[in-house]
Amino acid sequence: MKNILGREIPDFIDGYGEVTHYEGYLKKRDGEIKRNHTFKVATPETNKLFYDLNSLLDQLPLKDGMKISFHHHLRNGDYVLNFVMEEIAKRGYKDITLMASSIFPCHKPLVEYIENKVITQIYAGYISGPVAQAISDGKLEKPAVMHTHGGRARIMESGEVEIDIAFVAAPTSDEYGNINGVDGKSACGALGYAHSDVENANIVVAITDNLVEFPNTTIEINQTLIDYVLVVDAIGDPKGIVSGTTQITKNPIGLKIAGLAAKFIEQSGYLKDGMSFQTGAGGISLAVAAEIKNLMKSKNIIGSFASGGITGYIVDMYKEGLFKALFDVQCFDLNAIKSAKENPNHIKMSASMYANVNNKGAIVNKLDVVILGATEMDTNFNVNVTTGSDGVIMGGSGGHSDTAAGSKLCIIVSQLVNARISVVKDRITTITTPGETVDVLVTERGIAINPLRKDLVERFKNSKLPIKTIEELKEIAENMTGKEEPLEFEDKIVALVQYRDGSILDVIKQIKR
Amino acid sequence: MKNILGREIPDFIDGYGEVTHYEGYLKKRDGEIKRNHTFKVATPETNKLFYDLNSLLDQLPLKDGMKISFHHHLRNGDYVLNFVMEEIAKRGYKDITLMASSIFPCHKPLVEYIENKVITQIYAGYISGPVAQAISDGKLEKPAVMHTHGGRARIMESGEVEIDIAFVAAPTSDEYGNINGVDGKSACGALGYAHSDVENANIVVAITDNLVEFPNTTIEINQTLIDYVLVVDAIGDPKGIVSGTTQITKNPIGLKIAGLAAKFIEQSGYLKDGMSFQTGAGGISLAVAAEIKNLMKSKNIIGSFASGGITGYIVDMYKEGLFKALFDVQCFDLNAIKSAKENPNHIKMSASMYANVNNKGAIVNKLDVVILGATEMDTNFNVNVTTGSDGVIMGGSGGHSDTAAGSKLCIIVSQLVNARISVVKDRITTITTPGETVDVLVTERGIAINPLRKDLVERFKNSKLPIKTIEELKEIAENMTGKEEPLEFEDKIVALVQYRDGSILDVIKQIKR
Repeated sequence: MKNILGREIPDFIDGYGEVTHYEGYLKKRDGEIKRNHTFKVATPETNKLFYDLNSLLDQLPLKDGMKISFHHHLRNGDYVLNFVMEEIAKRGYKDITLMASSIFPCHKPLVEYIENKVITQIYAGYISGPVAQAISDGKLEKPAVMHTHGGRARIMESGEVEIDIAFVAAPTSDEYGNINGVDGKSACGALGYAHSDVENANIVVAITDNLVEFPNTTIEINQTLIDYVLVVDAIGDPKGIVSGTTQITKNPIGLKIAGLAAKFIEQSGYLKDGMSFQTGAGGISLAVAAEIKNLMKSKNIIGSFASGGITGYIVDMYKEGLFKALFDVQCFDLNAIKSAKENPNHIKMSASMYANVNNKGAIVNKLDVVILGATEMDTNFNVNVTTGSDGVIMGGSGGHSDTAAGSKLCIIVSQLVNARISVVKDRITTITTPGETVDVLVTERGIAINPLRKDLVERFKNSKLPIKTIEELKEIAENMTGKEEPLEFEDKIVALVQYRDGSILDVIKQIKR
Repeated sequence: MKNILGREIPDFIDGYGEVTHYEGYLKKRDGEIKRNHTFKVATPETNKLFYDLNSLLDQLPLKDGMKISFHHHLRNGDYVLNFVMEEIAKRGYKDITLMASSIFPCHKPLVEYIENKVITQIYAGYISGPVAQAISDGKLEKPAVMHTHGGRARIMESGEVEIDIAFVAAPTSDEYGNINGVDGKSACGALGYAHSDVENANIVVAITDNLVEFPNTTIEINQTLIDYVLVVDAIGDPKGIVSGTTQITKNPIGLKIAGLAAKFIEQSGYLKDGMSFQTGAGGISLAVAAEIKNLMKSKNIIGSFASGGITGYIVDMYKEGLFKALFDVQCFDLNAIKSAKENPNHIKMSASMYANVNNKGAIVNKLDVVILGATEMDTNFNVNVTTGSDGVIMGGSGGHSDTAAGSKLCIIVSQLVNARISVVKDRITTITTPGETVDVLVTERGIAINPLRKDLVERFKNSKLPIKTIEELKEIAENMTGKEEPLEFEDKIVALVQYRDGSILDVIKQIKR
């Protein structure tokens, strides 16, 4: 059937099952918690500590068809997913469901396991690199489920997927599984995405390269949730785990967009004492933060909190007293990690607390302003950050649609035209975030307000900012780029875009070669 | 049937159900997690905040037979349990199961609700005062279930009891339910006993007298678990919530016992670098801590952690560098509360992390030495801290049998004879803690080692300490007190002693008038 966003979605999808169709971002009012399992308790005699992966795997109830999970805080420096999967593949297990919060180019070895059916199903919030390409090429047996960061917590807490074994990269652990991400040579900061795994998986293995004496006194996840602690030489490559610092764009077009976005926020009424704010680590987003910082300082505005993945730039705003607290689900750079270790008001939160629609109130619900990006956008303000202009998977929602839904003001910043491609299109390849949750598009050629936001349209009626309709922006762009030919795809559904409430927003099809 | 401790326990008990008989403290090897419920999610529009109890109660699905829970961190200063129950009783609901982690003399108003069948069932880890008397008098319709502090977490996590509504006294909260116990006029410190409630109840109400601006930046329990925030004038009487400071005994007999206990620990081999230690807030226990402190300092011993309910005395040991960390489930005095707020290594833990046998490793499993008290003890080292010499309920396990089971060395300190009553008896009124988990009894007349601890018996064979058999201690006492007449009881079972694993250790019968 055609869902309310106009996307053709089957009612049943092989390898996934019955589809719940998207019916609006506030449809979900009932939460569901489901956990039913037994496990081996730890007695005073229990030894959790292993120094050899294979000895540990010998203890685990590995089987064909098992569901295993990993978190992505080590980002493109992660070794853990690769070395665990390598040994599991060697042992000949097949038909594994891999629930990895995100997958990066470093996870290229998975392609082989996809090809030979070791892995037949993947759940992730973000996929880039060779695994994304393999999925778009139709190599994964079942369609990948591309959820949101909050949605992953919902999937696990609601029992939609029951994880048999969670493997948790732990930059520091003691022998009993009190772990944190802020200490050790592979420090990555907050461990927000790992909480759902340890709380809901039947068996949890913490994997560390920094074993400390019991008790580890900085505890983000505690011993009551960890079955085994595996000590290895290295869980990741520090160079890939974090960048040294995140950087504001130097591109004059990007800076112009940031300036317009900041002026829009200033005039929107949301720039005031107690405001909360989130922005990603992209260059334009950080440039907006820089503008907001100057505005807050010049107007003596004290905000409430900043949230999300945290960058050193946001830490600096906190240190200057512009925010009372930081809610951090993952650290993007070394300054953020340092702050997560040192500042008591730099609060580490789980992905569920960050963005899950299936609990009693996520932080995104309290968010005033969020700055997000877009690969494509249609005139209904639907946004694509999942597939590229070639139709190949190159990202995913992460927290995109979670924050868009929760925030009072969701601003998309993007170049209108980049490399002769317009961001605004008649039909976008994939809907990642529904337009009803997106309020504004800011480009170098003008600002479009979502007509659903009558209050904002009214407020900016006489603004001197270059307010345009999104159709006008599309026309400006098309005059520069010409009409694009629509991409062609094979019929095979290779991935589903699952909204934060579990409904299916869109499907992604195999690319045509 | 007669269980392995020789207690006559029915296989089925009216008002409780099938009985699992106690079969040894390490019997439980399989843990169970069960949660299945739906709830109302919070959207960005949700208002959680209420300023009037009755308006809030109007929103709740109150019903006859409901199960409601409270925690006891406000101790004998608690107002919350009383004012909530008063309104519920006014509304005419009956047959309520009350799951209060502990019940104190201040909860006297509950007696009326017990008498008129508003409350027909009580679960608690410790009961003293008029409610205890009413239960012993046979007034409660169903037998009270007296569990351990860790057992309460197990009961909730395993689904043995499903709580409909948890009412959580919150010394500080913001409008969205980020709460802590260390700030505000009713500060009580750690909120360890409330975690199971908020994590497992269908509906959770936080009740505060210190509403702070969102976000509260010191968060022990976060917004994702809280449905409503009720603001009231006062949640408790600070004078009853905590004593100013806890005090070492001044009684010379108590000090003698403490001295012997410390010497025993010194010679036991457990007094060494990395030792972990727990003691209660009783005068003799604190005197043992004082002796241990001096020993540690003179021998330059650095311990690992101290745990349990934390007193200012233990905080001082931590501040002097004798322990690396404190694991705190509840604060006993103002100095402990201050430390819980200020010291990052003063770690607040849930009751489950403290003492639950139904998880992947509680802190008690890592405990070397625990000092506990006793009302009565038999020659099999079984301990009673539940009923008094008159047979009336006056306490309960709390963490007694949890720490006894987890620790490597469990020492009971007690006067052998007090007010012409011997602590050692042929048959104790109630078994709270099984003797197989108790290692040593230290009295002013000598020290008895449990024969099950062959290693300790051997180690102390040539010790100059007054080592005796427990039978010898009993004989010494009986020569002073004469043989006691056994207490007589009615046939009605008024309470069950439920061991930490859910098995029934003993039953308590109605007292004879």
